Amino acid sequence: MSKIITVAFGDGIGPEIMDSTLKIVNASGINLKINTIEVGKKIYEKGFNSGLMPSAWESLNESKIILKAPITTPQGGGYKSLNVTLRKKLGLYSNVRPVNSFHPFVHCNFPKMDVVIIRENEEDLYAGIEYRQTEQTFECLKLVTKKGCEKIVRFAFEYAIANSRKKVTCFSKDNIMKMTDGLFHKTFDEIAKEYPQIATDHYIIDIGCARLAAKPEIFDVIVTMNLYGDIISDIAAEISGSVGLAGSANIGDKFAMFEAIHGSAPDIANKNIANPTGLIQASVMMLNHLNESATANLIRNALYKTIEEGNHTPDIYNQNISRKQVGTQEFAEAVIKNLGKNPEKLPVANFKNNSSIKNEFLNSDKSNNSIEISNKKLIGFDLYIDWHKNFSDLLNLLKSLESQKFELKMISAKGLLLFPLLDINNMPEYNGDLTSLRFVGKGICGKSSSDIINPDILVNHHEIIDFIKYLCDKNFDFVKYEGLYLFDNKVAFTSGQGE
Amino acid sequence: MSKIITVAFGDGIGPEIMDSTLKIVNASGINLKINTIEVGKKIYEKGFNSGLMPSAWESLNESKIILKAPITTPQGGGYKSLNVTLRKKLGLYSNVRPVNSFHPFVHCNFPKMDVVIIRENEEDLYAGIEYRQTEQTFECLKLVTKKGCEKIVRFAFEYAIANSRKKVTCFSKDNIMKMTDGLFHKTFDEIAKEYPQIATDHYIIDIGCARLAAKPEIFDVIVTMNLYGDIISDIAAEISGSVGLAGSANIGDKFAMFEAIHGSAPDIANKNIANPTGLIQASVMMLNHLNESATANLIRNALYKTIEEGNHTPDIYNQNISRKQVGTQEFAEAVIKNLGKNPEKLPVANFKNNSSIKNEFLNSDKSNNSIEISNKKLIGFDLYIDWHKNFSDLLNLLKSLESQKFELKMISAKGLLLFPLLDINNMPEYNGDLTSLRFVGKGICGKSSSDIINPDILVNHHEIIDFIKYLCDKNFDFVKYEGLYLFDNKVAFTSGQGE
Repeated sequence: MSKIITVAFGDGIGPEIMDSTLKIVNASGINLKINTIEVGKKIYEKGFNSGLMPSAWESLNESKIILKAPITTPQGGGYKSLNVTLRKKLGLYSNVRPVNSFHPFVHCNFPKMDVVIIRENEEDLYAGIEYRQTEQTFECLKLVTKKGCEKIVRFAFEYAIANSRKKVTCFSKDNIMKMTDGLFHKTFDEIAKEYPQIATDHYIIDIGCARLAAKPEIFDVIVTMNLYGDIISDIAAEISGSVGLAGSANIGDKFAMFEAIHGSAPDIANKNIANPTGLIQASVMMLNHLNESATANLIRNALYKTIEEGNHTPDIYNQNISRKQVGTQEFAEAVIKNLGKNPEKLPVANFKNNSSIKNEFLNSDKSNNSIEISNKKLIGFDLYIDWHKNFSDLLNLLKSLESQKFELKMISAKGLLLFPLLDINNMPEYNGDLTSLRFVGKGICGKSSSDIINPDILVNHHEIIDFIKYLCDKNFDFVKYEGLYLFDNKVAFTSGQGE
Repeated sequence: MSKIITVAFGDGIGPEIMDSTLKIVNASGINLKINTIEVGKKIYEKGFNSGLMPSAWESLNESKIILKAPITTPQGGGYKSLNVTLRKKLGLYSNVRPVNSFHPFVHCNFPKMDVVIIRENEEDLYAGIEYRQTEQTFECLKLVTKKGCEKIVRFAFEYAIANSRKKVTCFSKDNIMKMTDGLFHKTFDEIAKEYPQIATDHYIIDIGCARLAAKPEIFDVIVTMNLYGDIISDIAAEISGSVGLAGSANIGDKFAMFEAIHGSAPDIANKNIANPTGLIQASVMMLNHLNESATANLIRNALYKTIEEGNHTPDIYNQNISRKQVGTQEFAEAVIKNLGKNPEKLPVANFKNNSSIKNEFLNSDKSNNSIEISNKKLIGFDLYIDWHKNFSDLLNLLKSLESQKFELKMISAKGLLLFPLLDINNMPEYNGDLTSLRFVGKGICGKSSSDIINPDILVNHHEIIDFIKYLCDKNFDFVKYEGLYLFDNKVAFTSGQGE
């Protein structure tokens, strides 16, 4: 039975590079059933604001695999990113982007660069949850889950093993974001223990980006969170010499999407000058994912051989290096002619079946072993208010409150402690607007809210609501509430800067 | 009357590079009163977990200016970053980091690189406000204010003018974070109109980082948000050839702090091999800030002359380029000997008084003109619950609720829409845990929560509390509440992915 794939020709240079890619795939002798769907500009303009018609899901549900050319999102409001929609709807939690130098056949400052970036694709700030709640303050939620961290980190290690990689590096900013990025880093350290054959290290994201930009050859596989991964993927591609040469995979438990990393470049469309290499690389990743490694090797080797021969599209053509400037179609024909040949200097592909990670392992005992449910205990809450008078009015009003149950432990604004202050002469500037009031059940905490002296005192939702109702009667304009919890008797919230 | 500065010698190589820097400053003939404070490792170990003794604030309150050598934060929990504490407590909202090539005297891949990065220093994710509220989910708040954006963007333009720069580039990620990063970008576009003599452009952060890493010479002044600024500052410094050569300023309305950009490097401390250039550059920025531009020029020119002469500390020593390898002290002596001389190839400093931005402009009419208070209207709320049963149980329970006032408009998880779905066959995977319920006052919205059909219906806090109390009776375990507002009748919250 032939395998089925869904194919989207996209916009701009999309159709021509997809045409070239499919010609090469067909010439390789593999028998694939190809379902074509329409996506992108035309569909947006028909009023489908995700760039996708509902009928596309039928094809996707059948094939589970999509090879996608770049698309153009029209300017103007209301359009949702097709890629974000696909990633989230199909659960494509892992973005895999190998970037390597083609030295000496394509100019690159880093001849030994050969890095694979594995980016978490569903969480972090990219959930796009935002609120404005005061005149001044806008908020975006950064959400990170244990499961999300575990899946992507395990994916990175499994990828390293399946692809004979030696090292996995973690990038995070856990010196600042101790809970969210801290979770990512801690998960990395824990899962690393299960893979003693793989070397590991960790960089703070700013230093990591700097090292990647200056010395990419020191990295092998990098695993990181969504935003950071977005940034470092682009750095890696750019310094490799050309964004036209890399493909990427977006992989989930059930679905997978493969694409070139570049955009639709409408300015050079229909001129037969676009470089199809990125999409051809994506098709090689797809064939591996389909367990068609022999075909993947055949195409990858022919592609590298063609680049080695110096048949170069204008984006990588260089008088001193290239042999001949060719068009999109001629490039594809050269690749087809080279099917069966191996590159001489560039590495020969030697993928084996099952070298693509399909994540069955995620549903295995391996990952479930580690799940222990914590004991969660409610001890209080932060109430964020919109305050327009001065600080002493606020403090006086708060001090006049009467409660059997709750005590005020902290006032802060944008994370900066305003009460209680160690040194009253060093009151930070306070301009009102969004202000956080921390109330904790009486007797639970000592001096500060992070100093738990009696974790056995209970607080319940009804007590909290009654107290907030009382605050409301006093005309507090609350805009936001965050519960304060202990997990396994450990504090699960941050202190104010200066507490 | 001599001007006063506070000086901190720091840890590791701190004392020796500070000693060299102060010798040069003294030799320049300027009369400064120097107050020394102790910060860093020793102070942390004495139990002050911000790395600073309360007495240090007295000196800072007197001088308003601190020149700080790098410090070492001891390993282990509980220590707060001294830099973050100083930035927040002193309101140092602007980080200024000029990075340039010293080609051909120090090896650099980018001979024409000359970029100044202006980073917002107080807001964004670095407020460090985090919560864990379910077994799975950890949250960090990204907070951005109108005032914060206005201040840093205006600072960048004023800096450009005062320092004869031609272009200011904005970096943000507003294709994803339309409200928070959108505010930054919009503020940039608005303020740019007041400075028609300065060219402007904008990059999405991932592409911007990639361009900076590959072609830094295309940038002049870059202004960006806290996290992005942290990342690009490090990229710029690293690709310039040495992190030992740059200084930085942290500037607020009342205080300012100047430092080298590198760390305390304890492994090379007390060996007379550290490069004091970064801290000397910081002292030049400080002198400018003090309106002592003549002295700033004198020192900067002597410093560049010394580098040009090939007197190089080991970090930048290169057999083919350098003339002589020198120690920390010898380097400082060479700079002192060169006071009065100008570099021949490297640019001659020509700072004028008031070229450092002291932000009086921020309290001027110019920035206050733009403040218009919006009309804020409460229309509903998102209630985040911790849900452990399946989705249909949740939906059934929600459908059984009775309310005269509120209607359920959306259920989502991590930003992904679960209800109402356009196509019920495409239900995303749902595993419980943190789930958001959106309730809006009846009759306010049409089909979706972003479709406002009657903005005149009012909702008040008491109605919301009564309704949440009712939900609480039904055993909803709520962990988080976010109010939903209209500002000037415009929706001030995001929709779910797929809504």
